[in-house]
Amino acid sequence: MLNSRLALPLVLIGLMLLSLPRLTYAQETPRNLILMIPDGFGPASLTMARDYQGHPLALDGIITGAVHTHATDARVTDSAAGATAYACGVKTYNGAIAVDTLKQPLATLLEAAEARGMATGLVATSRITHATPASFSAHVPSRGMETEIAAQQITKGIDVILGGGAQFYLPTEAGGRRTDGRNLFQEAAQAGYHVVQDRAGFDTLGTTPAIGLFSPSHMAMDVDRDPATQPSLAEMTRTALALLKDTPEGFLLVIEGSRIDHAAHGNDAVGHLGDILAFDAAVAAALDYARADGQTLVVSAADHETGGMTLGRKVGETSIYDWRPEVLRRISHSGEGIGQLFRQGVPLDTVLTVHLGLTDLTPEEHTTLQTAYTDDDERMLFDTLNEAINSRAYIGWTTNGHTGVDVNLAAFGPGYERFIGSHDNAEVGRILASLLQFDLQSMTQSMQSP
Amino acid sequence: MLNSRLALPLVLIGLMLLSLPRLTYAQETPRNLILMIPDGFGPASLTMARDYQGHPLALDGIITGAVHTHATDARVTDSAAGATAYACGVKTYNGAIAVDTLKQPLATLLEAAEARGMATGLVATSRITHATPASFSAHVPSRGMETEIAAQQITKGIDVILGGGAQFYLPTEAGGRRTDGRNLFQEAAQAGYHVVQDRAGFDTLGTTPAIGLFSPSHMAMDVDRDPATQPSLAEMTRTALALLKDTPEGFLLVIEGSRIDHAAHGNDAVGHLGDILAFDAAVAAALDYARADGQTLVVSAADHETGGMTLGRKVGETSIYDWRPEVLRRISHSGEGIGQLFRQGVPLDTVLTVHLGLTDLTPEEHTTLQTAYTDDDERMLFDTLNEAINSRAYIGWTTNGHTGVDVNLAAFGPGYERFIGSHDNAEVGRILASLLQFDLQSMTQSMQSP
Repeated sequence: MLNSRLALPLVLIGLMLLSLPRLTYAQETPRNLILMIPDGFGPASLTMARDYQGHPLALDGIITGAVHTHATDARVTDSAAGATAYACGVKTYNGAIAVDTLKQPLATLLEAAEARGMATGLVATSRITHATPASFSAHVPSRGMETEIAAQQITKGIDVILGGGAQFYLPTEAGGRRTDGRNLFQEAAQAGYHVVQDRAGFDTLGTTPAIGLFSPSHMAMDVDRDPATQPSLAEMTRTALALLKDTPEGFLLVIEGSRIDHAAHGNDAVGHLGDILAFDAAVAAALDYARADGQTLVVSAADHETGGMTLGRKVGETSIYDWRPEVLRRISHSGEGIGQLFRQGVPLDTVLTVHLGLTDLTPEEHTTLQTAYTDDDERMLFDTLNEAINSRAYIGWTTNGHTGVDVNLAAFGPGYERFIGSHDNAEVGRILASLLQFDLQSMTQSMQSP
Repeated sequence: MLNSRLALPLVLIGLMLLSLPRLTYAQETPRNLILMIPDGFGPASLTMARDYQGHPLALDGIITGAVHTHATDARVTDSAAGATAYACGVKTYNGAIAVDTLKQPLATLLEAAEARGMATGLVATSRITHATPASFSAHVPSRGMETEIAAQQITKGIDVILGGGAQFYLPTEAGGRRTDGRNLFQEAAQAGYHVVQDRAGFDTLGTTPAIGLFSPSHMAMDVDRDPATQPSLAEMTRTALALLKDTPEGFLLVIEGSRIDHAAHGNDAVGHLGDILAFDAAVAAALDYARADGQTLVVSAADHETGGMTLGRKVGETSIYDWRPEVLRRISHSGEGIGQLFRQGVPLDTVLTVHLGLTDLTPEEHTTLQTAYTDDDERMLFDTLNEAINSRAYIGWTTNGHTGVDVNLAAFGPGYERFIGSHDNAEVGRILASLLQFDLQSMTQSMQSP
């Protein structure tokens, strides 16, 4: 028989051990959520960036599974239906911004966070009124209604808004695209927002609420970006975290790597790659925060693949078992950036040799490019340039739109286990709501039957 | 102060709880391993099969992450280097069968299992001498050396061998392709093997060792398969499990869904889909066994993607945000099966309307097909047929070879947690060896310096 003096320590050990499962449960409830959406980032995009970089991405360290992305009205989703699935936990039709198939509003994670008193942030490299950020912060039946989306965004109480798209915040008379005469920057400032529109302003941000929109439309693709005029996605991420972190109720921050998708639409490998690496730097910044904090869940989930991009392809009749990142290393600009060089009057041959490293063009390729350049046939010019690059790098594309392949899912922090495996996109939204103990369904019912 | 009579129960509870981590560790060591390799199965292949079927695959239930597949000499692997990475935990060059970059032998998981006294099995729908099964059971510097591969396979002590490829087991005089005069079936029978070569023989298998090779070359694609003459991959899986399960030391079973890849090389959506579904039925059979057994680890890891297949593509100048499984539902045979119909004299128009459901061909398409058929231009005929099908189903392809995209990784059973995340293919092989407590490195050293 054990000495009775051992009883108390053993009781205490026993009670400590019995409490372990509850401690584990408590750790699974995140205080903060950083939801990161790399728009148009397919499985091959991850491989491409890793091969180019020569070592794993930050994202590689937290991969947990895959997401099925189809919309209610098509097996290939657009960004609006894709983001609504994450924002609201409900599948809807292509083009829908946080509304259901009957065009009725669906409560979003961001609205639930606001209702709880959490701090909220919205960061994107596209117009902040574009489909993905819009689906967390507005309800409209069609993604094209960006004037209305902007007007809804400034009434949501969002603490930090950073990205592009000043044009839908400004009236036409102030250089914007609003025809209702409203200047949302002025309205926001009157409501207490710190409003900035350039890099210098960005560097002064220190209090919430804050809005920083750094370009009339989308921000520059990262490979073209002038750091003196526009912050990077990682910089915007770190600033947003610094502004949000001290809220006692925690925060919800949505970050979109928006232009990964735009480059893929143009079958522009360098633009695509540059924005993937910029997104991954933002993932690394989010993970730095989450590791130090211990209470922050980071989830990265693409909305869909874009471009049908493949590493390895047929060139002529030869199916090549390789791809060549070194072709992309010689290129200084995205397709969009090259277009700007042409508009600035940089001669074709300078662009070809200095900016694209295309020193081995065939006479046929050069003639086609020269003709397109002379005729100002932009489409022929870029189709030929892209194919000259892609056929040398052995990169294939099957579309200028999206495709249906499952996309990568990644998670780190309390609750990350819930994201292991193969998930439907709306299920991902529902898991996020469940981890944050948001009742989106009741909020939606209140919205639809006020 | 607690009554001292509580001390002993609390001590016991405390000790039980303290032992939990060790119990958990014990559960993570599998007794048996079923390693399943869907050859040429990319991320879009999984989405395709799920969309076609209308509900998740067995594989969807056990997805854990992704695998990086590149070889030492190219960023796009072949099946030999890909399978060697899994079999040996070492990356090598394209074409290498369980040899390193210096062409020296590398010990395989199957050899380590044999050395331990475990039962072993090898199941494939290709020739059993083809790259994937070969990389577990032979060491040759080039995958084309199938005569040598077969000769090595019958000396390894493998308990169950099921698949295609009798031709490399038989001498030319017996209808095979061996020019050394050896009849490996006779040699195997003399060594105690039960040898069968048809469905009736398959149904009699009840003891080990057993060899069943059911076709001279590859087995039929599943959509073309006659169940009266060839078993399915799921049937071979269940038979192998029944034959291996009672070994006291446990078993290692390698199962390849070989022809998923072959169909994708031909950009043949129906053949690809049929063999994916057949593979998934084999996964379901493996999971049934593992769930009942509780000591079996099931891992599914593709070796690479094939075809650069995308769901959604450009047709003409239109980028379509959808794909149409219903086009594939109307098709009764793989491309290979259609070829057999032509050789059997089935008229072109019967094939087009009855077997391919192509009732809406344009006059141009029909003329091209008729000309190719009349001229016996098989390449033109199948290129045109494939494009007629793929352009209607909105399925894109960029190559007749492989691509570099990360492939799906899935696991179930003791130790499955080790497969969560983004892994290099050779790392997957090393994790498998570590879970089974195999020292492949020492075995390799002994092989290389005997």
